[in-house]
Amino acid sequence: MTEIVKGLRLVEVSAFIAAPYAGLTLAQMGADVIRIDPVGGGLDYRRWPVTQENRSLYWAGLNKGKRSIMLNVREAKGRELAHALMTKEGPNSGIVLTNLPARGWLDYEGLKAKRNDLIMLGITGNRDGSIALDYTVNAAAGFPQVTGPEGHDGPVNHVMPMWDVVAGLSAVNGILAAERRRRETGEGQFISLALADTAFSTLSHLGYIGEVQINGDDRPGTGNQVYGTFGCDFSTSDERRVMITAFTPRHWQALQKATGTEDQIATLANELDLDLTKEEARWAARDRIIDILEPWFSDHTLDEVRIALDGAGACWGPYQSFTQAVQEDRRISIENPMFEEVNQPGIGRYLASGPMLDFGKDPRTPVTPAPLLGGNTDEILACELGLGEGEIGRLHDDGIVAGAMA
Amino acid sequence: MTEIVKGLRLVEVSAFIAAPYAGLTLAQMGADVIRIDPVGGGLDYRRWPVTQENRSLYWAGLNKGKRSIMLNVREAKGRELAHALMTKEGPNSGIVLTNLPARGWLDYEGLKAKRNDLIMLGITGNRDGSIALDYTVNAAAGFPQVTGPEGHDGPVNHVMPMWDVVAGLSAVNGILAAERRRRETGEGQFISLALADTAFSTLSHLGYIGEVQINGDDRPGTGNQVYGTFGCDFSTSDERRVMITAFTPRHWQALQKATGTEDQIATLANELDLDLTKEEARWAARDRIIDILEPWFSDHTLDEVRIALDGAGACWGPYQSFTQAVQEDRRISIENPMFEEVNQPGIGRYLASGPMLDFGKDPRTPVTPAPLLGGNTDEILACELGLGEGEIGRLHDDGIVAGAMA
Repeated sequence: MTEIVKGLRLVEVSAFIAAPYAGLTLAQMGADVIRIDPVGGGLDYRRWPVTQENRSLYWAGLNKGKRSIMLNVREAKGRELAHALMTKEGPNSGIVLTNLPARGWLDYEGLKAKRNDLIMLGITGNRDGSIALDYTVNAAAGFPQVTGPEGHDGPVNHVMPMWDVVAGLSAVNGILAAERRRRETGEGQFISLALADTAFSTLSHLGYIGEVQINGDDRPGTGNQVYGTFGCDFSTSDERRVMITAFTPRHWQALQKATGTEDQIATLANELDLDLTKEEARWAARDRIIDILEPWFSDHTLDEVRIALDGAGACWGPYQSFTQAVQEDRRISIENPMFEEVNQPGIGRYLASGPMLDFGKDPRTPVTPAPLLGGNTDEILACELGLGEGEIGRLHDDGIVAGAMA
Repeated sequence: MTEIVKGLRLVEVSAFIAAPYAGLTLAQMGADVIRIDPVGGGLDYRRWPVTQENRSLYWAGLNKGKRSIMLNVREAKGRELAHALMTKEGPNSGIVLTNLPARGWLDYEGLKAKRNDLIMLGITGNRDGSIALDYTVNAAAGFPQVTGPEGHDGPVNHVMPMWDVVAGLSAVNGILAAERRRRETGEGQFISLALADTAFSTLSHLGYIGEVQINGDDRPGTGNQVYGTFGCDFSTSDERRVMITAFTPRHWQALQKATGTEDQIATLANELDLDLTKEEARWAARDRIIDILEPWFSDHTLDEVRIALDGAGACWGPYQSFTQAVQEDRRISIENPMFEEVNQPGIGRYLASGPMLDFGKDPRTPVTPAPLLGGNTDEILACELGLGEGEIGRLHDDGIVAGAMA
């Protein structure tokens, strides 16, 4: 964690990935993020992967550093408490993050009547409020059609829910920009973000829309090769696989030097009359380049490949399973200051990541595990809303709030 | 675009995706982003996809709304001009974004000597400054091993460079957080972000590290199915494909209703003694559920599927090629206020996306195309650095600066 936005306070009402990821990002930068869940937990409380004891590693991962309160918002009193937290005074408070429909008890205008400068960010599936999830958005955006081994018939989904993560980080941008604006003007606002639009805007930003509308082209599937440049995977003699890229002249030189293929490549360039220092020429000649490189990789072990390529300054990386990544890659260990071992209640000790950003003047502070569901209910009611012990007891008795669930 | 961060000024020295994506995001939120390129353009100036006239659709997409100056920073005078832009006074200026090595003329301490409260964000491959690109980072992170059709041997790369986009959006978070901090304390800082760490932190946040360290498990490959819940693709009678998800009880009910399979699903639940309203039970019974659903999909056209699933409120989406997405999906058209037709110099008129966020109080303003490379050189030298016509002429003559390239 870090304290760069210390003081900032958000209330999060969320499930699944995008909104929790946004809250996590802000919590790890030092914001006080209060996650409100229904009694017993939200839709994502038991989401897989889970431990043998049915604790969700997913939930624990996405809620590190937050505080948790369980409120029954189907009751008027529960909604009143939620609203009091959302609209509490203070220049750094009055920020709400949600991916639930922003209506009913989460209606912006209703909340704004209680705090005029409220900032609220709502994530939807599609812009019109209709349903879309990462997997359906990705299917619509075109990527699965060109992903997968060459010759494979049918779409290949991504495993990593990237549009959720993109939406989460974009939501943080929105909140920080709106809070900056509030400091300038005193005004809050509602910000909306559609998961589908994160993918569709990226199609514009990376040139895919231009390919269709200007070139009349559909980007072809290229297997593991990187379109328009040189990027390809190879097998090593010890049955590992490596991804090699040579996008820049420097990396292209380094690759030839490491593999001792300068002469063969020069001969090829002559034969094809291509300037192979250019990306588009390497793309045009890719099959021939692969033929030249392949024997070298299949003659060397991963360790030999590593020494040669690192020595020459080539750009490459080994393929790793999740287990190999976690067990063998020092970048995923406490040697990386981003990682720490945390003791996650109910789960145990394991490696957890703090923020991906390093702030020179706001150094890292310990990574805080996820709370127990409802683990901060009483403390929040007492300290944030000023309720007395008796009142808190009655709220428990009436089923309006609930405390830590084991 | 929008004007939510209007006034903010950044200098960007970048290539490829992550840093340009960050600058683009800030430019589209209203920041004045000045991109400095070497005379003739940087490594990415002709990057594919390109038009028939060899104009990069990629470069145009990633530099919308920025200003462009070409400076020869191999000359002392060119570096001096770059530093003057980076360290110009003003409370909203003094922000530098780069993915070049932050040393030599881009050394933070050197720049800080010229503006003490400078904010600078540097993106590297690995944290130690060594090389890594999206494709090598993804290989290391484990996802390619579990992506692709079930039974396929070998890793499957993603096509969409997601870690680049994640790094770009995270960089925006870093800049906005540091600028907020500077307003509080008057202090600037250097922020570093390693592309590799964006992937590795996400492994922690989404539970993958816990699976290895707590469960001793590697997440298996599951083809196009979504692990731990119900998500699967189906073919329609007109040879289209659709992605279906049922993560929540509501979507699960809607799916059964739309496909008229309630009775068969109830029978299956009885037979297997599973509560299929739970995600993990649907995962356990997925093959049987698919057997029940498949005939319905293969008996209906995409249009029939659409009417039935939308009518019931199911969560689904068609697979689309990039061409289908751009030509047939109204979400990628001017019906979506995020999109506009822009006239991109040298390329032509096509659809371009503004910011993915909608700010209630800071409405959308027209999407600005990318500049011509060096298209703002003279204007920036005159207006930002106060140089006279004669001086600017001499800089051109001496090869220190260059103007718009056709």
